[in-house]
Amino acid sequence: MRNISEDTITQAVLASMDGCRNARLHTVMTSLVQHLHAFAREVKLTEAEWFAAIQFLTDTGHITDDKRQEFVLLSDTLGLSMLVTTQNNRKPAACTEATVLGPFFVDGAPVYENGDDLSNGALGAPCFVRGHVRGVDGEPVVGASLDVWQSDEDGFYDVQKTASEVGEMVHSARGQLHTQDDGSFHFRSILAEAYPIPHDGPVGHMLDALGRHPWRPAHLHFWIKAPGYETLITHVFRQGDQYLDSDAVFGVRSTLVVEWVKHAPGVAPDGTSMSVPFYTLDYDFVLNPASAGATV
Amino acid sequence: MRNISEDTITQAVLASMDGCRNARLHTVMTSLVQHLHAFAREVKLTEAEWFAAIQFLTDTGHITDDKRQEFVLLSDTLGLSMLVTTQNNRKPAACTEATVLGPFFVDGAPVYENGDDLSNGALGAPCFVRGHVRGVDGEPVVGASLDVWQSDEDGFYDVQKTASEVGEMVHSARGQLHTQDDGSFHFRSILAEAYPIPHDGPVGHMLDALGRHPWRPAHLHFWIKAPGYETLITHVFRQGDQYLDSDAVFGVRSTLVVEWVKHAPGVAPDGTSMSVPFYTLDYDFVLNPASAGATV
Ligand SMILES: [Fe+2]
Ligand SMILES: [Fe+2]
Repeated sequence: MRNISEDTITQAVLASMDGCRNARLHTVMTSLVQHLHAFAREVKLTEAEWFAAIQFLTDTGHITDDKRQEFVLLSDTLGLSMLVTTQNNRKPAACTEATVLGPFFVDGAPVYENGDDLSNGALGAPCFVRGHVRGVDGEPVVGASLDVWQSDEDGFYDVQKTASEVGEMVHSARGQLHTQDDGSFHFRSILAEAYPIPHDGPVGHMLDALGRHPWRPAHLHFWIKAPGYETLITHVFRQGDQYLDSDAVFGVRSTLVVEWVKHAPGVAPDGTSMSVPFYTLDYDFVLNPASAGATV
Repeated sequence: MRNISEDTITQAVLASMDGCRNARLHTVMTSLVQHLHAFAREVKLTEAEWFAAIQFLTDTGHITDDKRQEFVLLSDTLGLSMLVTTQNNRKPAACTEATVLGPFFVDGAPVYENGDDLSNGALGAPCFVRGHVRGVDGEPVVGASLDVWQSDEDGFYDVQKTASEVGEMVHSARGQLHTQDDGSFHFRSILAEAYPIPHDGPVGHMLDALGRHPWRPAHLHFWIKAPGYETLITHVFRQGDQYLDSDAVFGVRSTLVVEWVKHAPGVAPDGTSMSVPFYTLDYDFVLNPASAGATV
């Protein structure tokens, strides 16, 4: 520690943590320091690049507030979020796969009854969603809590619009509901559309410099919780979307890609007479028993 | 890209950058993604730990402003700054070694003449600093620009105090001067004292959790620039300091450790009659020719 050089610095940093009383933190930080240093050595990171990285992180911190989480975007676009999701949600093949949470989940969304319209003013083609939540043995999961959220036809989530336009939070195209006695659920909302992640900040500049686009294929978010089962955070993706093979946050899993069926004007599944075309989406979820894996 | 899993995610992220037109950026980001993912796999980073990391980075960004750079502190305390400094400042053995810039440099400090007192109100025992700037062949470097900065006896830099107490920047214990025709310089300031890096924020909490202290051994910062020579950013460290073997930012190099000589009240080197004890520091710097290595 009295003569730090290019050759001794990594060992010096590791040795400085010898007094750490949290064994897990010690393990995590030891690996982090080793990989951080290995990266800097491998590319021979220059002083100018280091300054640019400090500025990038500073800008990322300054654009982040309670409505916008640029560090989550950064993690998402570098594939770290999906890696953490997948390695903590290993499940039997029969179970519905997990994908990234994303930055647009909001705690405390309005509670709806089955059959309600969650759109609450969000614009888009009408869409009727139906499905079941089951266990791996096919048993219905009764009273499971479903958080559902999605963007509108312009590609914006309510949190993005209310931050800039309204000033206070108005929940739209977002809600909580519960499965019925047969494990089923159904609600009305709007058609999910592809959208670009917020790309007017540091992460957007990074994607641009990397020759990457900011688009995500159309999807509907689900967060499903039920006692005795592993919590499932996932999306259902829309078959045919042009971005299924280039999701900006690497969230697509083939088992989660489903056809949204388009219907001519007529009677909707809930009996409503529709004067415009509408869509239906049917998807069943299979939960892993809680004891079988990690929980959030 | 249509079926991302724990096994395919890293390759998918790397492939997404195929369109990057900046070859160096492509190299850096490829290595960064590989090491980031390898780290997350190696420790099997949990979702709770990932959330904690996002929160840590967010807090680090929010405490950072134009007076406080918490990301630089983070880089410093993880040894990244020293690694980047050392690998970009490989020099012949005859040259003065570089060390970290640190977060307290301020551009545009007051210009002083040789013999001036740089303390400008900062409290501490009087200290008279003398030295030369030379090239590797011993030639004097005439008119070299020296930026000098240090903490006061309470361990604070002017930027830290003015941020909280005064509101506007008053430079103290900080200044620029130039070497004379024989390559010499001399100025009066105050005794350098050990100080803790700012530890009331996320980095301080990290150090505490790791069982590390936030202290740096007493030192005087120099940033020396001269046409035809490699810029030198370094410190001179005070021999005998209790933190020389545990510098919180890993900046100590044995060649930079020097005795600050204490003197009884009497006549100072500049002829001043001193009624209190004072210190003298003598240190000569040797610059590398500019063509021989990297410049800042
Ligand atoms: Fe989304
Ligand atoms: Fe310092």
